Amino acid sequence: MTVLDARVPRHGANPFNLVDDGAQEADPRIHVIEADLGTSWGEGARDDLRAAAAAADFVFNLAGQVSHVDSMNDPLFDLSVNTTSQFAFLELLRAVNPHTTVVYTSTRQIFGKPKYLPVDEEHPVNPVDVNGITKYAAEQLHHLYHDVYGLRASTVRLTNVYGPRQRLTDDLQGFLPIFLRRALAGDTISVFGEGDQQRDCLYVDDVVECLELAALTSDAAGQIFNVGNDERLSLAEIAQSVVDVVGRGRVEHVPWPPDRDAIDIGSYFGDSSKAKRLLGWEPRTPFAEGMARTVAFYRDRMAWYS
Amino acid sequence: MTVLDARVPRHGANPFNLVDDGAQEADPRIHVIEADLGTSWGEGARDDLRAAAAAADFVFNLAGQVSHVDSMNDPLFDLSVNTTSQFAFLELLRAVNPHTTVVYTSTRQIFGKPKYLPVDEEHPVNPVDVNGITKYAAEQLHHLYHDVYGLRASTVRLTNVYGPRQRLTDDLQGFLPIFLRRALAGDTISVFGEGDQQRDCLYVDDVVECLELAALTSDAAGQIFNVGNDERLSLAEIAQSVVDVVGRGRVEHVPWPPDRDAIDIGSYFGDSSKAKRLLGWEPRTPFAEGMARTVAFYRDRMAWYS
Repeated sequence: MTVLDARVPRHGANPFNLVDDGAQEADPRIHVIEADLGTSWGEGARDDLRAAAAAADFVFNLAGQVSHVDSMNDPLFDLSVNTTSQFAFLELLRAVNPHTTVVYTSTRQIFGKPKYLPVDEEHPVNPVDVNGITKYAAEQLHHLYHDVYGLRASTVRLTNVYGPRQRLTDDLQGFLPIFLRRALAGDTISVFGEGDQQRDCLYVDDVVECLELAALTSDAAGQIFNVGNDERLSLAEIAQSVVDVVGRGRVEHVPWPPDRDAIDIGSYFGDSSKAKRLLGWEPRTPFAEGMARTVAFYRDRMAWYS
Repeated sequence: MTVLDARVPRHGANPFNLVDDGAQEADPRIHVIEADLGTSWGEGARDDLRAAAAAADFVFNLAGQVSHVDSMNDPLFDLSVNTTSQFAFLELLRAVNPHTTVVYTSTRQIFGKPKYLPVDEEHPVNPVDVNGITKYAAEQLHHLYHDVYGLRASTVRLTNVYGPRQRLTDDLQGFLPIFLRRALAGDTISVFGEGDQQRDCLYVDDVVECLELAALTSDAAGQIFNVGNDERLSLAEIAQSVVDVVGRGRVEHVPWPPDRDAIDIGSYFGDSSKAKRLLGWEPRTPFAEGMARTVAFYRDRMAWYS
């Protein structure tokens, strides 16, 4: 297995994530390439990256800038990472491995404020931030390369993902790591307004299983899957559940900051029936159970993740 | 009035287009800036470009790479011109003139192969080439800047435009200039297959009127308009009409080239009722009449356009 990571400051992977539970160092079977996807194409493409792309039977394309607020503060960086670099990588695959299998992870953010719930794949796309626009362009490019060049690409549009090994050091990856970090530190979790917007949270093991099924199911090529959880909780309930599981921290309600209010989407939960039908996937992990496993993981390893 | 043009090879404007009918040189009231929109933002922004953007009451944003085939042959260039450069320009406007009026010209190509006809603004977006994806991203960015920053942006999605002053020197700008150039030269016009796909062609004066109305109608800000013609003709009829008006050339039917077949969208014609209702716009020019005016224009000026 090859891991390709650009290690962009604030977005880079944690090297500890390559260390198995109980082990002391990274699994030696994992080959790591440090390179930017954006330099993957044409004259800038490095030999090791070209060779890895040519040899890949399955590509799990998880790279991206994921912060909605950051995408508004530095929009051209978001475009560069989420669209231009992805495009260069698709061009590399077209050149060296055009019919390989790619599972691209997209985001519920492309839908903006839902017109109906739960949100299925036919729901109109209406991004309310730069991140939704740049991620959607990359998604469309993957499917264009499927339709025109035969790339076996599928897209899994994820909702709020949480679990062990998620970055906790800053507030870039959504509300779940923020809530967890504050509770672990005994701090206050701030919920904007009433916090009655509903969300479906996905435990990381359920996501991994979905991505594997998308890669291994031959009918998945060319398909898009909205993947969420049937368990829906309000942000206030989620915050309280995190505090309950951790046994520290408290929840407070604060007024909406204007920059967040402008891009908030209200309640969101997805309709996963297509993924269930075509992939045989099912989310297995209730939030309280997933959060308990997550907390147990971080309790032993806070030094690695903060 | 200021004209901003990057003069990218094969995409640059013709300086003769700034010369009025009957005049010998460019209108002295037109101020020309030669600059790439992509360098319009941040440290790369030139003072003259910043000043022009700050002073603009109306921006008619017509810049773009428009060739569908080229967008597949050089996809990263298409993204660079149609999305990244547009994005940099929006950032410049946000910095120096955030509430100005912008009319962005988009394309019917974003819809791909129509699911129903005529195509209205609610039709799902499903690009079948890179150009459709990059243009749609820029369209979404304009509307995001309207929603979040108050830019008075509207989008006019054009169908096949033709008329005086269009580039005739190569095959990059759709079938109409190709047909016209071949007929003027007494050559054969090749129509792929039966040529029974229908199109609605728009004469340039009708387009200009629509763009002006979009700029001057205050309710147009934030709105998208599909703009086409109620007169629908098959490609074979259009080719024959061009030959008839010019009085030279002939039409032949040839098999589909594979690269064109892969991205062809079949029949397309738009539903312009929203533009008629909100802008009071109406296409006035029947194809045979517009083509006759076009041919008369080029007959006197072939040296400028070939």
